[in-house]
Amino acid sequence: MAAEEIAAPTRILVAVNESTIKGYPHASISSRGAFDWILSKIVRTNTSGFKLLFLHVQVPDEDGFDDMDSIYASPEDFKTMKRRDKIRGLHLLEYFVNHCHEIGVACEAWIKIGDPKEVICHEANRVQPDFLVLGSRGLGPFQKVFVGTVSEFCVKHADCPVIAIKRDASETPQDPVDD
Amino acid sequence: MAAEEIAAPTRILVAVNESTIKGYPHASISSRGAFDWILSKIVRTNTSGFKLLFLHVQVPDEDGFDDMDSIYASPEDFKTMKRRDKIRGLHLLEYFVNHCHEIGVACEAWIKIGDPKEVICHEANRVQPDFLVLGSRGLGPFQKVFVGTVSEFCVKHADCPVIAIKRDASETPQDPVDD
Repeated sequence: MAAEEIAAPTRILVAVNESTIKGYPHASISSRGAFDWILSKIVRTNTSGFKLLFLHVQVPDEDGFDDMDSIYASPEDFKTMKRRDKIRGLHLLEYFVNHCHEIGVACEAWIKIGDPKEVICHEANRVQPDFLVLGSRGLGPFQKVFVGTVSEFCVKHADCPVIAIKRDASETPQDPVDD
Repeated sequence: MAAEEIAAPTRILVAVNESTIKGYPHASISSRGAFDWILSKIVRTNTSGFKLLFLHVQVPDEDGFDDMDSIYASPEDFKTMKRRDKIRGLHLLEYFVNHCHEIGVACEAWIKIGDPKEVICHEANRVQPDFLVLGSRGLGPFQKVFVGTVSEFCVKHADCPVIAIKRDASETPQDPVDD
């Protein structure tokens, strides 16, 4: 097994996002679920055999809804806004990176801006991980028709294998708006 | 890590089928690819951390094409045919089980008869593995329209996470009939 032990670690790309309930910098239930699943079911005790690549895609806030109470008076204000968003995203990634360091699993993390499903596929095809893990809200067939799913898109458009980890039903908020 | 080390192994259900070119008892290129992927990317050196569950679904040979040269004169002949099919399937599974024993990975293997996609989902929901791995021929979008894919069906209907491992493009036979 000597040859196997010095083999390059298995590189797992994990797309993570913020909680819709708590907002930044809190990770969504499904992102944390996917992360816990990777650690308990894949990495297990073999912490040196894997490297986790955390990608957070920020959606451009086109309607500015989150900033209804802010006043923008100069180009500088917009730069501040973008910088603040980026900082929030970094704190989101901090949760995952800190946890990896605590248990001794190698990792990298970065932020991209754009449409999550397209950016995730683009990044998957760029960094060529061994596989891609996505947290999923586990929508039923009826909801899927309207919402679509990132995982379905990635299964079709990412070059690497994709696995979607559905959140436990017990963790689904009663009101989908809180999801 | 003591608690982790005595934790139950991660149970991976792997659906395997026979080679369309060589027939029984040879495993298909995509089944062997999925198996190799699990060993090199997931199990790695942690052989005691995983248990592989091999499922082979035999499709009832409704048109009897494979038996064009046989003569059936009695009910006993049909029993012989079914027994022979089952034996062929067992030899297919032998390949995977033998390999697991050689490297010290726990496994189980069994055969079911029916429509592969439906049986795979049924078995996944019955044995509740941590995830399901499917070898995939990696059809393009055009081919998918006509052929459909087992993995798309399983992603929708299996309760557990599903990962499809596409065969290397270099291993695709030139003539799809040989696939």
